[in-house]
Parts: sequence; C-alpha cells; structure tokens
Amino acid sequence: MANIPYKIYLTEKELPQYWYNLKAVMKELPDPMLNPATLKPCTKEELKQVFCSELVEQEFNAKDKYIEIPEGIRDFYRMIRPSPLIRAYYLERMLNTPAEIYYKFEGTNTSGSHKLNSAAAQVFYAKEEGITTLTTETGAGQWGTALSMACAFYNIDLTVYMVKVSAEQKPYRKAVIETYGGKVIPSPSDTTEIGRKILAENPGTGGSLGCAISEALETAAKTENCRYVLGSVLDHVLLHQSIIGEETRIACEKYDIKPDIIIGSVGGGSNFGGLIAPFMGDKIAGKNNIHFIGVEPASCPSLTRGRYAYDFGDTGKTTPLIKMYTLGSGFMPSPNHAGGLRYHGMSPIVSKLYHDGYFEARSVEQTRVFEAAVAFARCEGILPAPESSHALCVAIDEAIKCRERGEKKTIIFGLSGTGYFDISAYMSYNNGSMSDYVPTDEDLEKGFATIPRI
Amino acid sequence: MANIPYKIYLTEKELPQYWYNLKAVMKELPDPMLNPATLKPCTKEELKQVFCSELVEQEFNAKDKYIEIPEGIRDFYRMIRPSPLIRAYYLERMLNTPAEIYYKFEGTNTSGSHKLNSAAAQVFYAKEEGITTLTTETGAGQWGTALSMACAFYNIDLTVYMVKVSAEQKPYRKAVIETYGGKVIPSPSDTTEIGRKILAENPGTGGSLGCAISEALETAAKTENCRYVLGSVLDHVLLHQSIIGEETRIACEKYDIKPDIIIGSVGGGSNFGGLIAPFMGDKIAGKNNIHFIGVEPASCPSLTRGRYAYDFGDTGKTTPLIKMYTLGSGFMPSPNHAGGLRYHGMSPIVSKLYHDGYFEARSVEQTRVFEAAVAFARCEGILPAPESSHALCVAIDEAIKCRERGEKKTIIFGLSGTGYFDISAYMSYNNGSMSDYVPTDEDLEKGFATIPRI
Repeated sequence: MANIPYKIYLTEKELPQYWYNLKAVMKELPDPMLNPATLKPCTKEELKQVFCSELVEQEFNAKDKYIEIPEGIRDFYRMIRPSPLIRAYYLERMLNTPAEIYYKFEGTNTSGSHKLNSAAAQVFYAKEEGITTLTTETGAGQWGTALSMACAFYNIDLTVYMVKVSAEQKPYRKAVIETYGGKVIPSPSDTTEIGRKILAENPGTGGSLGCAISEALETAAKTENCRYVLGSVLDHVLLHQSIIGEETRIACEKYDIKPDIIIGSVGGGSNFGGLIAPFMGDKIAGKNNIHFIGVEPASCPSLTRGRYAYDFGDTGKTTPLIKMYTLGSGFMPSPNHAGGLRYHGMSPIVSKLYHDGYFEARSVEQTRVFEAAVAFARCEGILPAPESSHALCVAIDEAIKCRERGEKKTIIFGLSGTGYFDISAYMSYNNGSMSDYVPTDEDLEKGFATIPRI
Repeated sequence: MANIPYKIYLTEKELPQYWYNLKAVMKELPDPMLNPATLKPCTKEELKQVFCSELVEQEFNAKDKYIEIPEGIRDFYRMIRPSPLIRAYYLERMLNTPAEIYYKFEGTNTSGSHKLNSAAAQVFYAKEEGITTLTTETGAGQWGTALSMACAFYNIDLTVYMVKVSAEQKPYRKAVIETYGGKVIPSPSDTTEIGRKILAENPGTGGSLGCAISEALETAAKTENCRYVLGSVLDHVLLHQSIIGEETRIACEKYDIKPDIIIGSVGGGSNFGGLIAPFMGDKIAGKNNIHFIGVEPASCPSLTRGRYAYDFGDTGKTTPLIKMYTLGSGFMPSPNHAGGLRYHGMSPIVSKLYHDGYFEARSVEQTRVFEAAVAFARCEGILPAPESSHALCVAIDEAIKCRERGEKKTIIFGLSGTGYFDISAYMSYNNGSMSDYVPTDEDLEKGFATIPRI
C-alpha cells in the first residue's frame, strides 16, 4: 500500500505534448455530419462559417493518432495541469474492499471541471485566427465558467447564453463568469430571432440547452469576427479532453497500475471520451481487455434508452445532423434533475464506440448518486460535482462487488469536477426534497417523435 | 526561469513530521492569559474545562521547538497536503516585474482554506480523549466548513454557531457544513442564555463572531463529553498552522529559493503566524533578514490602529483575558466589509512579535483588495478568497516597487484560500456597489472603551 502515493502528480516535463485522436485508431469511423438542407456530408468550408478553422481541421482529422499541443496552449495547461490521479485509500478503507480505486481529479482548477481543457484550446485557436468575440451556451454553468477563464487569459470577448433557469438558480456561477469578464445573457432572450420566437411561443419558459445553443449560433453568425464554440459532443472537443486520458496513462505506466475497469460519467461525452481515449485505443488494437463503463442519469438516458440516429444538436434545429444516440432534440429533461448531463444527444465518437460494443453503459438515479457523493465527500474530503458522482456511484458498486467476490480489481474513475457551485442540489438532497425521475416510455416516444426521418 | 516548476509539490515523504513552535524560540514570550475573576494567570486545569487536554498542553508549551504530528493527524494531512508552492509566472508577466513571486496555496481542499490544518488536529485530539461532541463558532464560514470535514472524518458530532448574517448571506456555506454532518445554528439563538439575552437586548441583530463564541462556549460547558474548539488566535492553532510554513521552508530549500519578503493576511493571526513560523524563528536567531508584512483590512485594523492590551476574546466577556492588539471586544466591524478578517483581537504570539518590531503591518481598503483579486484570478486562474487577497494586494504593490526600482526581490505570499463561497462579495465588486469603510477615530474610541481596565 505504501508504494503508491495518495496523489500522483506528474511533473511539468511529463505534461503530454500530444492529444490522442481516437478516430485515427477506430476500426470504423462515426458517420459524417450532414447538412440538413442537402443531406450531404458537411464540408469543412460550411463548418468554418461557424467554427474556427483549426478546430474544423481537427474535427475532420481521422489520420493522425497524435496531434501536437501548441506551446500557446501548453502555456495555459501548465497553470491548471497536470491534474492528480488520486489513490482512493480512504474510500477503499470505508468500503473494506480488496479493489484498488483511483480517480483522475479534474476539479482542481477554479472553473471546477475538465471543461477548461477544451476551452483553453478553442480560445487559443480563435485568438490565432484573429477572432475577437466568441459566443457559447452553458447549462449547469461549468462550460461557461471555463470559457470565461480562457477568454480572460487570451483576451477575447465572450457572450454566454445561459439557460435561464440555471442563471436564476445559480447566480454565483453567473457571477464567476462575470468576474472573468464574460457577458451572461439568460436564454431564451430577446437578443436573437430564435429567442424571441421561443419566448413568444413559450412565455415564462426556463429555457433549455438546445435553445441556448440556437441563440449562440445565431449571434455568432451575425457578429463580425465572431465564432461559436461548443464544450462537448464534437470530435475536436473529445480530442482536447484526451489530455485527461493521456495523463492517466502516463501516471499508470509510471506506477505500474493496470486498470481492469475505467468508469466515466457521460453527458455530451467529452469527459468520458477524453478519459478513455488512449486506453480505448489500446483496446481496439487488442492490447488490453479493460472494461469501460459510461454512466448516465436515469432521467436523461441517451445511451441506455435512446436511439442511434441522425438528429439535430439543438432545439432550434439549426445545427448539422449528427449520427448519435439521442432522445430527440425535443426531449425535455425533468427540471427535477439536479446536475448537468441533461443533453439529449451524445458525442458521435462515443456513440459509435457504444454501438460497436466497446463499452458498457449504465444509468443511475439521482438520489443514489447523491448518496455516493456525500459518502465520498466525507471520507475522501472532496465534494464532487453531481455529474461526476454518476461515475463515482458505479465505481463504488464495482468495488463492493469486488468485496463480495473477493476480487482485487483495479478501478479508475473520472472525477470530472467539484460541486462547489452546485450546492443547491446538495441542499435538496440534505433536506430530503430530492426525488428520482425516470422518463416513461411515453415520455421518450414524445422525444423520439422529434428525431428527423431521413 | 525554466528551472523552477510552476507548482512545487512536495512528495508525501517530505510532508513535515513536526509542527514548529514559535514560542520556543521567541526571546520574550507573550504575556499569559488571565482569569478575569482573579486576574491571575489561567491554569491548565481551568482551560481543560473548555478545551481538550492535549491542546491545553500545547497552548502552554514554550519549550519544544518541534512538536511531533501524530500519525492519526498525518493520516488526514495526506488527504489534503502537501499544498503547492506556486511560482506566479503569469502574475510576474502581467506586472512585468523583475521580482520572483511565489504563493503558498492553501485552497486546494474542499473547505477552501488553511483552517483545515488545525481542524484536523483539534478533532483528532478530541477523539483520542473520548470527547463525543464539539462546539464552535464561524463567521465567514471557513472554520465551520473545515471543522465539519474533520468531524465527519473522525466521526464526532459538531454544533456550529454561525453568525446569523453569514448564515443568511451564505446559505451555501451552511449547506456544505450540513453535507458534512455538522449542525448549524444561526447566532444569536435561543439555545443559550447569552443568546437569549443578546436577542432580547438587540432584536433583529445579525450577530457577531464574539457573540457566536459566547454561545458555543456556553453550550460546550453545559453538554456532556463536549469541548469547545477555536479556529484562530490561540497558540495551539498557530502551532498547527506552522505546517504551512514548514512546507514552504522545505520547498524553498529544495529549489534554493531565498525569500526577501513574506506576506500574509492577518485576521486572528493563524494563517500569518503559521506561514511565517520557521522563517521568523530563523530571523529571531539572526539567520535571515526577511521582511515580513502582515496585511489587515482598513475596516478592522487591529494591528495598525488597535491597542496592545488585555482584552476579552468574545463579546460576552466570558473568555480569559488575552494580551493582544485589540479594537475592543465591543468593536463592531462595518457590515459593509465583504470578507472575513473581522475579528477585534489578534493572536497573542503575532501581537507580541509585532509589538517587538519583528514585522510590518499594513492595512488596505477592500476595493483595492478586490481589484487585485480579480486581476489575479484572470491571470493566475485562481479565484482567491477576499481574506487572502489582502496579502495578494500587498504582494502586487511590492512587485511593482521592484519594477520601479529595478530590484529582483523574491516575494512569497500566503494564498490562504479560495473565494468560491464568497461570490456575493465578488458580485458587489462587479456591479460597483462595493464601497470602502474606514472607521473614524471616534468609532475606534467606542471600541476601545470596551477594553477592561486592569
């Protein structure tokens, strides 16, 4: 037990110099994005109207397994990384399990989550390309916070469309974004056509992520020298997040840790996809037999109950069509659900890997998730994000199985962030007002009905 | 520049095995605490009615320069420590200063501050001595949060009297304490005699730290197997906080960093006293000539405008008399002041060192503090606690002096915590509603009038 430190910190020299591009090693690629008007694959040129050029190049890159991280991004990464791989000695002790448990902790930066890894990269490229303003959306607020930090660092203007109900429930998130100089607009708003339309049709609506995406896209298109950036789902976001997996791999090799199980929470898929990237690459190459588990909320079960189909990424149906596991862009997650992971769709890479049987997906209900989160907080001293606690919950399940079966497995899970700005969710758990919600088959059918037939 | 990493993490083997006891090396000791009834020095036996035995032994220990940290506390410290000593490369770049700036960052744990160092120690000793319940007070909430984390870890019940205005302004702080199982009672409350008395005399009062201390003391005295614990001021708290200074010293020696200036924020003095401990010991021994600066808010200027006198530690005048710099136990800091550092008194050790000329004290106004905090957040990626930003503000002042004079000094400051739970203060800074408040001489005279004449 004494050989492995409580916290494995890589040195700055060990900070990865390359992102790991899963698409370069996948046996079959995800289906291409389609232009909804023509149903033909989107061209780079079309996407470059919306996204920065280099990001579009990365989006299409299925050739290079390793993509070099520019020094200007490594300059930022040295501020927030390497993040620790922590041996969960206290959790193991509490569970009395023979399993060895590790977690890669992405919550040590002020934004409180892994989102900053891609935010830094995207803002750096925007700056390089002479972009002066970025727009985005944020739901739970982690992406908006991360992006505002990156924009403050690289000196770029930022407008964040924040799901209205989040902006109201999380004034502190909004304040942090503003402290970093970002402009926050609760969505739907009257600053866009789509926002005015949604407001007219649904007066008093609390908004949704899909709606905020539509507004951010519209504003980006109408503003000079402006691009839209997205915090999850897309292939280039997963690429940037592969730094999580690369650091984990290097730490494992350094201490001869051989994971049997790797667990991550899945919302849009960037955290999970980033964590597993190099390990999954090796699995595809037949070099390991790791059991990967993606964990999603039972209230928004894209993988476990969704359909693998072409769908829009936003409610306004303005994005390209993406082949992914989806609940339908019209699916409305219960407001009862506390954390993030409320997105109707899923990363095309993660979707394809799941479709091809490379990992297991599980869904868990939120009171179980918070039970695990509080137990973890009390023994490991870290208050986890509700999102991250989905992975944590299943890690505990697996560790208990190890105890029952007398198996000494090595489990790694991604602790993608802290819950410091999600305290209201903990409050509702503490006072017993939190309840579980699982959509009925009828609920799901309503969402599925919004998936385009192509 | 490349030789010193951005973040210096000591290994777990380098985690200090000893606390550094400044009193063992001071040329003159602070005057003893007095029993207010007899005006005779308090005996250990008297203090053991209120505090755990081992803590009282430490409070009286002026003999042992090094006091061993028990394995049961080191077990906890390995969860949260060593904390990083960070080279402020980005801040240096922004300031364009030849100075080398470092900060010891105590905000990486969930409680968000250095307070956890002493909380863990105090709860461990309570557990060892068979105590089953602890009481305390909290103002800004950092101490209450830290203590609830330690109590959850060592499995001890906790009641926190939280200054009512803080409990209302910071529901999230309260929720975190509750998540860790602590019971929060807004003070003044009807659960104590002193609370009922204060409520009767001041209906609608928002409470004060001194009042909350009185309530926690009364409850500890009346509850079986219960002791009171305090998060600052006392000598044993400074002893535990010396782990900050010891780690800083070890990191400096490892990388041959020779500080010219060491800066810390001072409220009750535990953060500053802990950070400077081994360096100040060497200065007393003539082994260095470091310039130490303690920074306090202009709104609560205990050192820079207070009196060095015997005074009570609480508003209810129930504590022993302590020789310290004080504004008078009846001094009421302006509610306008955003952060912590609102205590009327000061650590006796820090007070004595100041009285004997071993360090400089400065006061700064809060809008300047927040200006520094926001600049720091944007370039170093960490949102600092308002308290910690006092030290940060003066570190920036000193670094700018270095630029103006072309001096390459080495500056270390203590970044004692994060501002994640103090966002409302940032909100008031962001929206321009924050103002400065400096007590007039008349205001101070009112406070001084409450200092007992002995």
